[in-house]
Amino acid sequence: MARQERAVRTRRVILEAAAAVFDERGYDAATIADILSRAGVTKGALYFHFASKQELAQGVLDEQFGEGGVPQRESKLQELVDVAMLLAYRMKREPMLSAGARLSLGPGMREIFGGGSVPGWIEFTRTLLVRAKEQGELLVHVDPAETAWILSACWTGAQIYSQALNDRTDVEERVAAVYQHICPSIATPAMLARLDMAPDRGQRVAAELESGRGPVREADPAFS
Amino acid sequence: MARQERAVRTRRVILEAAAAVFDERGYDAATIADILSRAGVTKGALYFHFASKQELAQGVLDEQFGEGGVPQRESKLQELVDVAMLLAYRMKREPMLSAGARLSLGPGMREIFGGGSVPGWIEFTRTLLVRAKEQGELLVHVDPAETAWILSACWTGAQIYSQALNDRTDVEERVAAVYQHICPSIATPAMLARLDMAPDRGQRVAAELESGRGPVREADPAFS
Repeated sequence: MARQERAVRTRRVILEAAAAVFDERGYDAATIADILSRAGVTKGALYFHFASKQELAQGVLDEQFGEGGVPQRESKLQELVDVAMLLAYRMKREPMLSAGARLSLGPGMREIFGGGSVPGWIEFTRTLLVRAKEQGELLVHVDPAETAWILSACWTGAQIYSQALNDRTDVEERVAAVYQHICPSIATPAMLARLDMAPDRGQRVAAELESGRGPVREADPAFS
Repeated sequence: MARQERAVRTRRVILEAAAAVFDERGYDAATIADILSRAGVTKGALYFHFASKQELAQGVLDEQFGEGGVPQRESKLQELVDVAMLLAYRMKREPMLSAGARLSLGPGMREIFGGGSVPGWIEFTRTLLVRAKEQGELLVHVDPAETAWILSACWTGAQIYSQALNDRTDVEERVAAVYQHICPSIATPAMLARLDMAPDRGQRVAAELESGRGPVREADPAFS
């Protein structure tokens, strides 16, 4: 393996270990020693890539939405549901995502990381809602900025409750229920009748992405 | 001041200091030394009341919903909105509430505190929704258990986002927006037309409670 390739792989191993430790213990309680022992790399290797715990956490945040892309749909509200359901599906399986969510939301995290991925997530949602509204998918009273904030916050609340109460086993079902509770207030009846908000939607979208069917938008730059 | 009265007062001072420290730093990062210095009491006084950090946190959780009571309404959906808006109003002003929310939701908190106040909060919401449905305030498809979970989780998500992004300055406006986004999916049109979900609802309910007008239900035992 070329030296550069090995460095990339080591960096990834360290970030995955950091994500797992941040996810389990939180930023404050996590130590570099925990991350070293989880990653199984030398101290020198870790500090070659990351100078501090804060840089490690920033690395996790940067990777959070770096992979996979999101499916493009003609209906932008369906695209938004798909992104939310895909994230719920992946969050159950990838510590990088759940650690990123946790790092973004702890009190004090705002000072250190500027709210982490949350502002980018709200802005991404707002952009899709603006386009959905232009296409006539949303009711006239909908304010895309306000609804984007609410949808993002409610997604996060469902994820946190699911984690705290059920170890995330029901996260897809709960995120689906969030959308089922909110979409009737924002979507036109015609849109609502065509919207797929089933709990297994994320799994089906993931399979679609893996099979290479359909156009895929790369992860939005707002996230990184 | 009688000795017992003084002990009650000291216990309260310690719990308020503990709430402030847990709220700012989180359970893991908080230390007894922080709490001691914030409370301005002796180590002996603190250990007389609480044997450990875990007991301090449990004390904060127990106090969380112990005060104030909630207003009774003929419409149980309005009563639920009032409780939610009153909590948002008080959370901005009382660290005991915000620390309790934080202690209930951190990863790892489930093992230590059994999900904190969250299960009691969901159950309280479910009970009100069952009565609202019996009274014909809710649409026939509404499952009180599912909707109670979703409303509680979305309330929490709005509170966390408001804290992380805006230091809770907009928490009442955001919690109101959560209800405005969900109630149209669950309430009958006649109920919806009478429902007060304005952002200043919590403040008005607090004033009503202070003035002693209207029947008040004591804090629900499910919370303690």
